Amino acid sequence: MGGINTNFNLLAAGYLFPEIARRSKAWLSIHPGQKLISLGIGNTTEALPPSLVKAMKDKLDLLSNRETYTGYGDEQGDTTLRVALKEYYTKYGVTLDDKEFFISDGAKSDAANLQELFSPDCIVAVQDPAYPVYVDSNVVGGRTGEFNLSVGRYEKLVYLECTKETNFIPKVPTQHVDVIYLCSPNNPTGAVMSKSDLKEFVDYAKREKAVIIFDAAYCEYISDETLPHSIYEIEGANECAIELNSFSKSSGFTGVRLGWTIVPFKAVIGDSNPGVLNHMWNRRQCTFFNGASNISQAGGLAALSDEGHKECMDLINYYKGNAKLIRDGLTECGFTCFGGDNSPYIWAECPNSYSSWDFFDILLDKCQVIVTPGVGFGPAGECYVRVSSYGHRENVIAALARIKEYFKK
Amino acid sequence: MGGINTNFNLLAAGYLFPEIARRSKAWLSIHPGQKLISLGIGNTTEALPPSLVKAMKDKLDLLSNRETYTGYGDEQGDTTLRVALKEYYTKYGVTLDDKEFFISDGAKSDAANLQELFSPDCIVAVQDPAYPVYVDSNVVGGRTGEFNLSVGRYEKLVYLECTKETNFIPKVPTQHVDVIYLCSPNNPTGAVMSKSDLKEFVDYAKREKAVIIFDAAYCEYISDETLPHSIYEIEGANECAIELNSFSKSSGFTGVRLGWTIVPFKAVIGDSNPGVLNHMWNRRQCTFFNGASNISQAGGLAALSDEGHKECMDLINYYKGNAKLIRDGLTECGFTCFGGDNSPYIWAECPNSYSSWDFFDILLDKCQVIVTPGVGFGPAGECYVRVSSYGHRENVIAALARIKEYFKK
Repeated sequence: MGGINTNFNLLAAGYLFPEIARRSKAWLSIHPGQKLISLGIGNTTEALPPSLVKAMKDKLDLLSNRETYTGYGDEQGDTTLRVALKEYYTKYGVTLDDKEFFISDGAKSDAANLQELFSPDCIVAVQDPAYPVYVDSNVVGGRTGEFNLSVGRYEKLVYLECTKETNFIPKVPTQHVDVIYLCSPNNPTGAVMSKSDLKEFVDYAKREKAVIIFDAAYCEYISDETLPHSIYEIEGANECAIELNSFSKSSGFTGVRLGWTIVPFKAVIGDSNPGVLNHMWNRRQCTFFNGASNISQAGGLAALSDEGHKECMDLINYYKGNAKLIRDGLTECGFTCFGGDNSPYIWAECPNSYSSWDFFDILLDKCQVIVTPGVGFGPAGECYVRVSSYGHRENVIAALARIKEYFKK
Repeated sequence: MGGINTNFNLLAAGYLFPEIARRSKAWLSIHPGQKLISLGIGNTTEALPPSLVKAMKDKLDLLSNRETYTGYGDEQGDTTLRVALKEYYTKYGVTLDDKEFFISDGAKSDAANLQELFSPDCIVAVQDPAYPVYVDSNVVGGRTGEFNLSVGRYEKLVYLECTKETNFIPKVPTQHVDVIYLCSPNNPTGAVMSKSDLKEFVDYAKREKAVIIFDAAYCEYISDETLPHSIYEIEGANECAIELNSFSKSSGFTGVRLGWTIVPFKAVIGDSNPGVLNHMWNRRQCTFFNGASNISQAGGLAALSDEGHKECMDLINYYKGNAKLIRDGLTECGFTCFGGDNSPYIWAECPNSYSSWDFFDILLDKCQVIVTPGVGFGPAGECYVRVSSYGHRENVIAALARIKEYFKK
């Protein structure tokens, strides 16, 4: 007799962000009337750019008229948007085909669903620390063993440690792996891989016939123009890499929902033929998905226009201004900070060797500020917290004042 | 060395609708300038109801203001929408908890993704004919064997034949199965299961500790008020059934994207404990999904208001008017037709024992009308076509005129 997918039982504890929400709610319930400031979840807070809103309202007008109404779009996304994205990549010197782009409801869904393309015996490597979705989706997909509580790691999974000794840049695996998740600019550390860092991974992947899943959701936050925005800036990456991206953090679309995934025609894994991964993802999306919202897609198209892009860059620069304030403020308190220059995230070492959750609880209890415990992203994140620059400027300033007041006294 | 998920190789041919699109394009390429009328895909064609549009524009105004902007919503959907849906079900005499509702980007995604909750050794039963997503998602999930071309069926899958002898209503399996997909009003046959039909399945599921996945996406098309809109109208169904539904066909949201799934606290499969399926789906959605678009959700909430619901019923009645015209028109041509009274689909027997695809090709070539070959929904659909009532009234009339002209001469 069949039953549940028991892989779900292997998932360690709750998903990070619900656990943060639970602790915050519990604290508030015994401290009624207090106001918490969240620099925790990477959740955008500023208004949608006006030309994106206009495009979405215009789309609603089209949908209000039977002559211009449209129903189901293509599962892969609107051709105009796929073509516009293709054009957008030329500014990175990257040439792709619009049929290599797949529009989705966001990078999280794609990051989680991509594992369905791979066999259960694939060996998976993740950065440690890393965005939890890469790990959790592969747990559900059956590519891990038990969670080993004493080391905070899943059996069978290969962890690429990112520590301050290596500037939080991962080293290529010392063993064979089949799938490698990379995120650059990194969530949570804010570290950005250079072209030569990425080239080592591309060389490794081509040698080992592995596939790299490259999450570039924060690439618009890169200030240092020598750093790559897309893995396809590395020659040969289109033979071994799938790239994810999103309008969430560049256009304020966290709630509107829109992202894209690039699966190049030439990308392979193991002894698969070129074209197979693109074909499989196309089939997966046609079977399991019915296209992203046409309203969101209209907004996404506007974000790629000259005017829309300028407005989005203003939004990004606002958050980057927050990031600078946070990094400077925390440094003033004596904390050792990383990231925040090419990324919306500051990766701060906990003072006094506090554990991540202990420092989280102190910041919650003493400063009423929410951050994200680094250990929630993997064992190498222990004794760090991720501080997010997503917040109103006045709240960021108030949060820093609270932290300074407590830690500088 | 790992590689691709070879289950994808088991998928038979292309997904039905892309194949229809391919044949239509091919025909047009050798008949330039001709105009096809599609009564094929179940794709809405009429304008969005005005109060839904207003609600979505109002939401865009809120998102345009930093004081009222919101980013990520709950992965499970907005509480207000979950509560409104819960209230909506009371008119069916159904009492549920709002935490049993999960809002998604559409019923197709949920229909496909739900299989992730079940072990690979689950025995799966589907209606034959059925919406292809139930089958294809379980092929990818590894619960079938090879596709047997000679019988048009996957090994290991249990097919519940729906023929005109049983008014296209399935009979409970004669063997043990773990998961049963039911769709009522049915896509493609238009047949609606009565309360006593459903009770037999609920009794079976409770006896066998199976779970029913009940797709009610077309329930608003039911005219006969003795027929159930929700499986939870059957006592005990909340112990064995998950229900899917969508705003696509009731609110014109095929492109806007919004649906919901109900996973009752008490629902079980095999020897799982009550609560486990609800907990697992919650975890699945928190890990693999980031919530439905907040704009779409604002529209969905408006669709449940008195005014919005009235506008949606006008839309539904428009398509039901088309359905009546189609059924009457095809009957006039001498075709034997089913469905269309409590459903937007007419299930028409092919004349002269034509195969589904042969009749498809004749309607394409001789009448320039697109329908959906019944065999695309399963082998028991052979020698039928599904005719969809989604279309402008004038196109429906024109399509029927073309069909009458060819078949009545």
